[in-house]
Amino acid sequence: MPQFADRVAKAQRSFIREILKVTADPSVISFAGGLPNPASFPVAEIAAAAAKVLYESGPSALQYSTTEGYLPLREWIANRYRTKNGMDVDPSDILITTGSQQALDLVAKVVINAGDTVVMEKPGYLGAIQAFTIFRPSWRSVPLENDGPDLAALEQALDGAKLFYAVTSFQNPSGLSYSEEKRASVARLLSGRKVFFLEDDPYGELRFKGRALPPVYKQRPENSMLLGTFSKVAAPGFRLGWVVAKGEIMERLVIAKQAADLHTGSLDQMIVHQFLVDNDFEAHVARIRTLYGNQCRAMQAAIAKYFPKDVHVTEPEGGMFLWVTLPEGLSATELLKHSVACKVAFVPGAAFHVDGTGENTLRLNYSNADAETIDEGIRRLARCLETCLAGRDALEAEMQRGCQD
Amino acid sequence: MPQFADRVAKAQRSFIREILKVTADPSVISFAGGLPNPASFPVAEIAAAAAKVLYESGPSALQYSTTEGYLPLREWIANRYRTKNGMDVDPSDILITTGSQQALDLVAKVVINAGDTVVMEKPGYLGAIQAFTIFRPSWRSVPLENDGPDLAALEQALDGAKLFYAVTSFQNPSGLSYSEEKRASVARLLSGRKVFFLEDDPYGELRFKGRALPPVYKQRPENSMLLGTFSKVAAPGFRLGWVVAKGEIMERLVIAKQAADLHTGSLDQMIVHQFLVDNDFEAHVARIRTLYGNQCRAMQAAIAKYFPKDVHVTEPEGGMFLWVTLPEGLSATELLKHSVACKVAFVPGAAFHVDGTGENTLRLNYSNADAETIDEGIRRLARCLETCLAGRDALEAEMQRGCQD
Repeated sequence: MPQFADRVAKAQRSFIREILKVTADPSVISFAGGLPNPASFPVAEIAAAAAKVLYESGPSALQYSTTEGYLPLREWIANRYRTKNGMDVDPSDILITTGSQQALDLVAKVVINAGDTVVMEKPGYLGAIQAFTIFRPSWRSVPLENDGPDLAALEQALDGAKLFYAVTSFQNPSGLSYSEEKRASVARLLSGRKVFFLEDDPYGELRFKGRALPPVYKQRPENSMLLGTFSKVAAPGFRLGWVVAKGEIMERLVIAKQAADLHTGSLDQMIVHQFLVDNDFEAHVARIRTLYGNQCRAMQAAIAKYFPKDVHVTEPEGGMFLWVTLPEGLSATELLKHSVACKVAFVPGAAFHVDGTGENTLRLNYSNADAETIDEGIRRLARCLETCLAGRDALEAEMQRGCQD
Repeated sequence: MPQFADRVAKAQRSFIREILKVTADPSVISFAGGLPNPASFPVAEIAAAAAKVLYESGPSALQYSTTEGYLPLREWIANRYRTKNGMDVDPSDILITTGSQQALDLVAKVVINAGDTVVMEKPGYLGAIQAFTIFRPSWRSVPLENDGPDLAALEQALDGAKLFYAVTSFQNPSGLSYSEEKRASVARLLSGRKVFFLEDDPYGELRFKGRALPPVYKQRPENSMLLGTFSKVAAPGFRLGWVVAKGEIMERLVIAKQAADLHTGSLDQMIVHQFLVDNDFEAHVARIRTLYGNQCRAMQAAIAKYFPKDVHVTEPEGGMFLWVTLPEGLSATELLKHSVACKVAFVPGAAFHVDGTGENTLRLNYSNADAETIDEGIRRLARCLETCLAGRDALEAEMQRGCQD
């Protein structure tokens, strides 16, 4: 057999993917996925939009289209940045991508030579780690604090780096956000440095607590790229995301996009645009915020009720995730084996670390379960945690007995 | 500014893209694009399918989905290969891609190290050249004859090569097809050689003349990948294509796909599947074949009527393109400048060559214009050709006068 390219010779399927297979069993309560709640999908409005687009513009919705994307949709996005965040974004600064995962691939293609240094948050988004890994960078990582990155560590990490990747609001996996002060500090650290900045903002619209903050991109647009997506505010099944960038960067992203898939689906773009202009988007997003806010509080309440005291949990102001740190020495991978037997699942945190650490961390998703299910799932998980904390002997005894819960 | 990755440092926008901008002027008759005829789009059937999918399965059509693609659609595709071509294709051998352009990108990612030898047809498909160029291969090319590749040249080119890319039926840009004998010879040449074979078959369903032939993949599946698409038999606006491959190759393509865009749009896949099962696909494709066959004959008739005798044109048995070879020394790029002034456009052939040749060739598309428009466009183009053939002085005089037609 001929040899595969070096970039995929050692590639492996995502660990999360494999976990999700286990959770296909409907008796397992899964906090493992990262799925938006389908109750938030505007199915009837999308059906109406699809019918209208196909009736009024069928042939053009089904034809090849421009690589940059459907202009009215790009105008809508630019206008949202202007009105919501006072940002100077022109429709020509926007490239529609096949989900923001594609934007990660395109940016990696355009920016990373093998061996270039990429600075990640710690913990960092797994989808970005996967997209970048294909292009074989060297990694550095900067610990996240409750209000954003450790600035001294970031300053050091940026030295000679090619790219800094950050999810600044309600990060996946940690749920943490950059404060106003840290946003300003990061912009200052980046200014004058020869480094690309990639700000990923899939959850920015999903703030259910605290005050809205504009992306760091607003303060430091040069050499920067900002990603957005309709996956969390319309529906992920469309695979519709975008990159905001200017000038030379945009030019190269468009060339890479053309070679990658010519353009993103015309029909999808036109349906989502029709949905946006025919409905009250603010009211729609407000409903999602309320839904996820309630579910987050339900999970926090259950954690307060059931979890052992020496387990640390983050306090997100939006988004879809909570991040759990177990006492040093405990393994979330071991915990998962036990918890799956007890019919509750999560994602162990090691996969979100590029430095081999994070074995005692895990991610919990609260967007895709109701309050009652959340309570029951956290109760089960707490029981497994207690067993793990009681030590290896107790865990092995329990696993041999089977879950007695 | 930081440096871009080497792979895109010298990248340029597609020349065809730039030509297509010129042809946005509705007074220009364009044979430049590669667009299916929107008259062939089943708009009402797609609208019915979209309504049904959203009514019956809205939440799952709008949710994240598996990387491999929607299983019923993969089953439909596998079944079509079995019934139409007697091929041994299992649904698990099929990965749904975001158009077959994405399949080109994924294959390149998985196979090509910088410097690896890629064997292209001469002329070769531009979209593949663009996708592969990102991964910086060395090129070899093998001349196409009327019945397929020059076998002696292919045998030599395969020596030490990593990948051979071929469009075996009604090729873009030439319109040429591999005969039954050449298909067998190519399979024989590949067998026992350590080389990946990528067979691209976007037009295979569009045969309006001659006898259907199965893909070479049927005879040599090991180390091979076969691409297909719904762009030419349903609609390109969906961006729905697929790769057929087995075992280790499929495993790596899935990993690359997951990093590239997680999965192809769920709604699009379900709409197209619903369209396929609710309608008579054979009858639908037969209508497209008849339409394109008539338009091809109209173009051939106009060429016979108007073109100078020493211009060579291919005789396709299907697909969307004719390939024109001008007498040596003539430049299709120069001709285009003149023809645009005379309100007719095409694609100069040099871009389809990886060896810097082909200046005297050009591609004509017949799928997207009716017979009357085709006659008028070919008449205009013939007039420009006559002027070019009369020599540089005549051309310059004519261009200064403007088109007198």
